[in-house]
Amino acid sequence: MADRLTGGDSSLLRRINAAVTLRALRDGQSVTLTQLVGDTGLSRPTVEGVIEGLMESGLVAEVEHTQDNGRQRGRPARWFRFRAEAGHILGVEVGVHDIRVILADLTGEVLGTHAKPVGETLDADERLSCVRTTVAEVLRKAGVSRDSLWAVAVGTPGIVDREGTVRLGTAIPGWTGLDLGARLRRSFRCPVVIENDANLAAIAEHWQGAAVGKGDVVFVMAGLSPGAGSLINGRLHRGFGGAAGEIGALHLLGQEATPERLLSTTGKPLDPLDEAAVARVLRLAREGDEVAQVAMDRFLRRLVHDVAALVLALDPELVVVGGWAAGLDGVLEPLREQLELYCLRAPEVALASLGSEVVAMGALRVALDHVEEQLFAVDPPGASAR
Amino acid sequence: MADRLTGGDSSLLRRINAAVTLRALRDGQSVTLTQLVGDTGLSRPTVEGVIEGLMESGLVAEVEHTQDNGRQRGRPARWFRFRAEAGHILGVEVGVHDIRVILADLTGEVLGTHAKPVGETLDADERLSCVRTTVAEVLRKAGVSRDSLWAVAVGTPGIVDREGTVRLGTAIPGWTGLDLGARLRRSFRCPVVIENDANLAAIAEHWQGAAVGKGDVVFVMAGLSPGAGSLINGRLHRGFGGAAGEIGALHLLGQEATPERLLSTTGKPLDPLDEAAVARVLRLAREGDEVAQVAMDRFLRRLVHDVAALVLALDPELVVVGGWAAGLDGVLEPLREQLELYCLRAPEVALASLGSEVVAMGALRVALDHVEEQLFAVDPPGASAR
Repeated sequence: MADRLTGGDSSLLRRINAAVTLRALRDGQSVTLTQLVGDTGLSRPTVEGVIEGLMESGLVAEVEHTQDNGRQRGRPARWFRFRAEAGHILGVEVGVHDIRVILADLTGEVLGTHAKPVGETLDADERLSCVRTTVAEVLRKAGVSRDSLWAVAVGTPGIVDREGTVRLGTAIPGWTGLDLGARLRRSFRCPVVIENDANLAAIAEHWQGAAVGKGDVVFVMAGLSPGAGSLINGRLHRGFGGAAGEIGALHLLGQEATPERLLSTTGKPLDPLDEAAVARVLRLAREGDEVAQVAMDRFLRRLVHDVAALVLALDPELVVVGGWAAGLDGVLEPLREQLELYCLRAPEVALASLGSEVVAMGALRVALDHVEEQLFAVDPPGASAR
Repeated sequence: MADRLTGGDSSLLRRINAAVTLRALRDGQSVTLTQLVGDTGLSRPTVEGVIEGLMESGLVAEVEHTQDNGRQRGRPARWFRFRAEAGHILGVEVGVHDIRVILADLTGEVLGTHAKPVGETLDADERLSCVRTTVAEVLRKAGVSRDSLWAVAVGTPGIVDREGTVRLGTAIPGWTGLDLGARLRRSFRCPVVIENDANLAAIAEHWQGAAVGKGDVVFVMAGLSPGAGSLINGRLHRGFGGAAGEIGALHLLGQEATPERLLSTTGKPLDPLDEAAVARVLRLAREGDEVAQVAMDRFLRRLVHDVAALVLALDPELVVVGGWAAGLDGVLEPLREQLELYCLRAPEVALASLGSEVVAMGALRVALDHVEEQLFAVDPPGASAR
């Protein structure tokens, strides 16, 4: 307390001054020393010292400015820019059907992306080996060294704890109990964060998709095994054990059936991972097949029920519906109508807009958060008063 | 940004120094000037100036200390204490069956409390007039002037928006649409905050009850019209429109019935506000009546379902069960067992411990937060970086 009010130590101050200066440079435009002095509120000698240090560490470069028209008197202005290429980040999805990797620079600008289809029966070792080759491929194509990675974030289905162990993951063989964080950290020297896929989808849609500007958002991954991710005041709500939003178990209560039973037209449940069979039922329903229509109806009622449970618990401003079922005709409108009917305060309902990259993009945003925390944060975490 | 780093203006600094000094005094023990200098890290002249100002505004008093043994050399030490009696706060519950008022001083020490039973059919005007007479009674008995009130917080059933209007309140006649905040503000010169009753119960149990030390808590108000309040990282989650936790509408979906139907032994639904009829059914069930046992079972399954929906959405560390149904035999254990079965990560389940005062105590805590924000906050709200 007293420390903070009376000034604090000088290395903290240096860190803060560097963060303030980098913030003024982060847009990627080159800026003069004089502009930096104005933007930061710091003194000219302080900014000069900070810039010197940032150039030594490779984060800032001096720029030749030929546009100077030479009519100015005195010393020519010195121009600087943030070196976004000083480091790189990866956003990765380890999904049931795909491995997807997105590479970006320190401002989040995407430099390369690659998706590789994988069999849903692939075991954990094979799947991880496929992650490694996909990462290597993306780095090689972009000509980026593995050592220049500052942060890697990875999304995957299931309940993931803060250390990166999959506490429960029924969608992928061998996933439950896997210490995914430790396994992937062997391949990287930088921090590796593991997060639930629906949580990352919520973050991605808030960053660049259908939820931009909305603080209280629920993202529903609509499919046979529905999951959800929630933002509260713009921040991810993981829950005490990382299991928030895993509403798929609701159907086990009472007499309700699982989606794979609800959608069956034969009396025999569908394979929950067989999206083709599901798509067939939905196509039949659209074509007028009565049995398929009844099945589709049962499935929709189930989805509405799950989403309503989330909405009543959290009261979000916006529900974003993604996952493969979101793209199907006749899913969004009934959901919107039913929520209007059953929720005390019905939220807006929108279709996800980032498509199949949504989870990897959310992972990229988490990796970028990590970088920005290191570069731009003025308050070190946990230092605020109260 | 720049302002903050280079110092800020002197009135802000005075406010911060006063807050820091008051914090050091808040425990209620009297303290010497020298101790204050040590505790705050401020200089002796600064502390003297701050104390002078606080004595003028009535928040600090100088204390005679006869225990001084006189053997000390130099000036005798000056002792000071925080004047908790300089102001007062009220925590109020406007319930279906009771009006309850708790009066406390600026440290939250309770000085008086009064509960008045009211008929469930009382309309809004009569109910508010009853609130006013109960408040007047409590103030009169404690010999406290209405002008010395710093903050009033009020809990009531229903969805309440941030301005204090009841958006939906089916439990009390004339409640939906009522601008309860504006109506009650006519009786007080200080700020009046209105909040949902289950939300306040969550806050109260976290303050002094079964949830002390737990950050992620769901409080379930178990009864015929179940509601819930949630804390995330120790802070109330109200939802975008104040409707978070209002899970009672879930039963409208699908084929599920309302609790008053589930608990009926005659085929005719019970009156949802008739707690006596409900208690009769539950007593019969305990005595072995089969029809009543089936009804009780239906009711429990319904409660488990509602709580499971909340737990799956939020993943709390602890579920606290309160409301009149919580006190009944055979509610807690089945709930705990069923949550273990159906939730991916089962939370702890505990009985509420604050009894019938829980909502008014939560209101008192909210009023106290308001006072502490004014007295002790070093960071004005919204001033933190990022």
